[in-house]
Amino acid sequence: MSSTEKLYLEYKSVMQKVADVKYAAAVLQWDQETYLPEKGAEFRGRQLATLSEISHEMFINDKNEGLLKDLLSKDLPQEQKRNVALTWEDYSRLKKLTPEFVRKMSETVSASFFAWIEARKQNSYKIFEPKLAPLVDLKRQEAELYGYEGHPYNALMDEYEKGATVQKIDTIFEDIKLPLRQLLSEIQNDRPVDDSFLRQHFLKQQQWEWGMYLAKQLGFDFERGRQDISEHPFTTNFSSQDVRITTRIDEHDFANMTWSTIHEVGHALYEQGLPPEQYGLPLGEYASLGIHESQSRLWENCVGRGNAFWSYYLPQLKQFFPEQFKDVSKDQFLKAINKVQPSLVRAEADELTYHFHVMVRYELEKRLIEGSLQVKEIPLYWNDQYKALLGVDVPDDKSGCLQDVHWSHGSFGYFATYSLGSFYAAQLWQHANKTIPGLETEISQQGKTKSLLLWLRNNVHKHGRFYNSNELCAAVTGHELDSKVFVSYLKEKLNDLK
Amino acid sequence: MSSTEKLYLEYKSVMQKVADVKYAAAVLQWDQETYLPEKGAEFRGRQLATLSEISHEMFINDKNEGLLKDLLSKDLPQEQKRNVALTWEDYSRLKKLTPEFVRKMSETVSASFFAWIEARKQNSYKIFEPKLAPLVDLKRQEAELYGYEGHPYNALMDEYEKGATVQKIDTIFEDIKLPLRQLLSEIQNDRPVDDSFLRQHFLKQQQWEWGMYLAKQLGFDFERGRQDISEHPFTTNFSSQDVRITTRIDEHDFANMTWSTIHEVGHALYEQGLPPEQYGLPLGEYASLGIHESQSRLWENCVGRGNAFWSYYLPQLKQFFPEQFKDVSKDQFLKAINKVQPSLVRAEADELTYHFHVMVRYELEKRLIEGSLQVKEIPLYWNDQYKALLGVDVPDDKSGCLQDVHWSHGSFGYFATYSLGSFYAAQLWQHANKTIPGLETEISQQGKTKSLLLWLRNNVHKHGRFYNSNELCAAVTGHELDSKVFVSYLKEKLNDLK
Repeated sequence: MSSTEKLYLEYKSVMQKVADVKYAAAVLQWDQETYLPEKGAEFRGRQLATLSEISHEMFINDKNEGLLKDLLSKDLPQEQKRNVALTWEDYSRLKKLTPEFVRKMSETVSASFFAWIEARKQNSYKIFEPKLAPLVDLKRQEAELYGYEGHPYNALMDEYEKGATVQKIDTIFEDIKLPLRQLLSEIQNDRPVDDSFLRQHFLKQQQWEWGMYLAKQLGFDFERGRQDISEHPFTTNFSSQDVRITTRIDEHDFANMTWSTIHEVGHALYEQGLPPEQYGLPLGEYASLGIHESQSRLWENCVGRGNAFWSYYLPQLKQFFPEQFKDVSKDQFLKAINKVQPSLVRAEADELTYHFHVMVRYELEKRLIEGSLQVKEIPLYWNDQYKALLGVDVPDDKSGCLQDVHWSHGSFGYFATYSLGSFYAAQLWQHANKTIPGLETEISQQGKTKSLLLWLRNNVHKHGRFYNSNELCAAVTGHELDSKVFVSYLKEKLNDLK
Repeated sequence: MSSTEKLYLEYKSVMQKVADVKYAAAVLQWDQETYLPEKGAEFRGRQLATLSEISHEMFINDKNEGLLKDLLSKDLPQEQKRNVALTWEDYSRLKKLTPEFVRKMSETVSASFFAWIEARKQNSYKIFEPKLAPLVDLKRQEAELYGYEGHPYNALMDEYEKGATVQKIDTIFEDIKLPLRQLLSEIQNDRPVDDSFLRQHFLKQQQWEWGMYLAKQLGFDFERGRQDISEHPFTTNFSSQDVRITTRIDEHDFANMTWSTIHEVGHALYEQGLPPEQYGLPLGEYASLGIHESQSRLWENCVGRGNAFWSYYLPQLKQFFPEQFKDVSKDQFLKAINKVQPSLVRAEADELTYHFHVMVRYELEKRLIEGSLQVKEIPLYWNDQYKALLGVDVPDDKSGCLQDVHWSHGSFGYFATYSLGSFYAAQLWQHANKTIPGLETEISQQGKTKSLLLWLRNNVHKHGRFYNSNELCAAVTGHELDSKVFVSYLKEKLNDLK
């Protein structure tokens, strides 16, 4: 073995041990949101804080800095070179935080998470506010520690979508706002769609079985993952061999569980498709949150709200719920599940108005981080913006500014990736349909999505972080991200349903 | 704050962070035995190994050694003094292991655990053997690293029951063997007890609800814990505020789940009774495994197989399973659940023959560790001993030497604490009945065990590791452990049932 090879192995060993600790923390977080007994929360908070502190110290130290610098100067094979370069980027960024800061962040996040849970229970933002305020302060400090050009919010977005800036995101949202509003007002002039059959009574256990069936059909590998119940659905992983999704079930809302499950399965298929031999290394990680979201949105919307999919699956669904869907035609079903209607809750929004939900959060966070909006002003700002952008009155905090878990996790700078994900998804979907022969027929006649999954595995998943999001999009589709593709995808889909 | 106070706080902070990592590992282990998907096992193994290595390094280092030595020389309040002294004992012991050894042990344990799972599935010791052999080698090395007087097995028993030696345990087992054999042969001359009604069909879900009801009734605090399903029932905790029990349910064996649940609840009540303010410190930990087992056996057997308990609970049970128990009298029920009959499986054995099961394992381990028995000879030795001591023929590995999880966890030196636990339990129970006015009436008339729990909380739980097991036994009952108390408890109970 050459000395360079030894050096690379040493790097790999360090990185994998850091990953062990991070994934251990992820197990504790998963448990926190699924099974943790109420009074276990306080000690769980400190356990997570200690793990954060440790993984930070294991990564950020002079020895590793020397090792990385050494490796940067070596002539490495392409994949190894890319791993080292990406690790160096991460290192340079994280080095700006002290272990004490990391611990404080983790503790503040835990306290804030439990305050959010309680605030939702009592439907009162006032319970969340005193725990959110110190967290926002910390995030503002974090932005300063990282440093930025232009807007401080750039420093935070960079964690989720490298290279995303206020300037770029503002432009994308500006480009898309007008066509979406036009499309919305056209639809609002049409006859309202009847989707009341989605709000009949659907037994919890039967919904669970239906969700498990769908997850299996879509290719989620239950030998390398599982599904559980949580307050807010999410996907997490502790290696590509252990990927977990969660769901929630509302007995009076069929749509809630079904598309959230397809969505999380989309995330999970990505994680299960990352190369296990790159465990702990950048090439074993997802490209960006925008790309991650492109996978979930592609399955949820492009596949899971599509004509082909329900050609096969509506008859299956009728076997699970013979009573509830007996008089529902495919056409009625498709119209209902694609109904465009401004509403209160992002996670249940249609494909069009979804982006107005994101824009509200994005603008709000920008202001919080630049200091032009105070934490105590959030509900008022939120409610005003929902009225202005979506035309809806927010009746209470639970269906308003308390609806999303992200802030309680300290995830500021995250929301824009939801819209980016939809736009990447449309572009990938367009290209997949051009490239995979017989895809639509396979789906509509056999309910099979295997060739799509295989295509995503080969074109997106297997690369890990080798390409950044724009490079990946260009490499796969031939073009960088273009939000017009999303607009035309949506126009066509909604027109077909008329 | 004085410099000594500062020093103690520093010690406390170090110990609590070490505890954070150990408890994190415990969460990963709990998950491993309850929810882990099959293919997640390999990476989970390395994650656990990394956490073991880290917690070892965080505890064993020159800085902590200096800190502890410093504190040992200071004049501390009694409880603090005891914490530091016990930590020093632990430190001196663990210092003998290198981080590499600890990591290797953890990895070997993981591999061995999954081999055991697989071996049980396929009912073949041959699958377990190649993963158990290196583990036994490591345990023998560990005994040498720790050092010992007399027998190398002493070094391993010391981890579970400080001060236990082959000499002492041999004596206890010698003392008890004869009276137990006499008692057994007397019983075997009696008319056989009919316990067939315990092996009717009992639906899983109903058993689960019955078990949850019992756990609540006995005082298990579900705000500070939960119950799940696993292959082998166990109790674990991640602080005194998060104590988890597991159970397994056999639809054709009522006894299996019921008394294993009461048993685990007994363990859990102890953990929930440890002082939370001593988190991470010796006084926040259980006294010894013998004492831990005394709590589970006291609830399982002294309470949970007793006349008073079923005076109240048999009518309750009949509400859960009206069909199965409709013609069963309390007398029949008590005879059946206390039926003495040599059998194959320790966890399901009666109170008498249980100790023969333990003796087989104890002798076997002694020989493995001293090197007079080889890993490949285990099934033969096991089967011979079961014939000799219990008079039963072992039909296969699953009901023979593969029945217990302990070896796959690397727990050698553990089994004797099961018998010690029963003996401590009898002595505590005898004393509780003398001391707590109206205990029996409370149990038989109201199904209440609160005054017993309170008595255990005050006399056993709250002390943590302040007393060692013998000191604790003497402090509470006025005498050190005396196995004759157990023999007379058992004789009286079995005679009453005639």
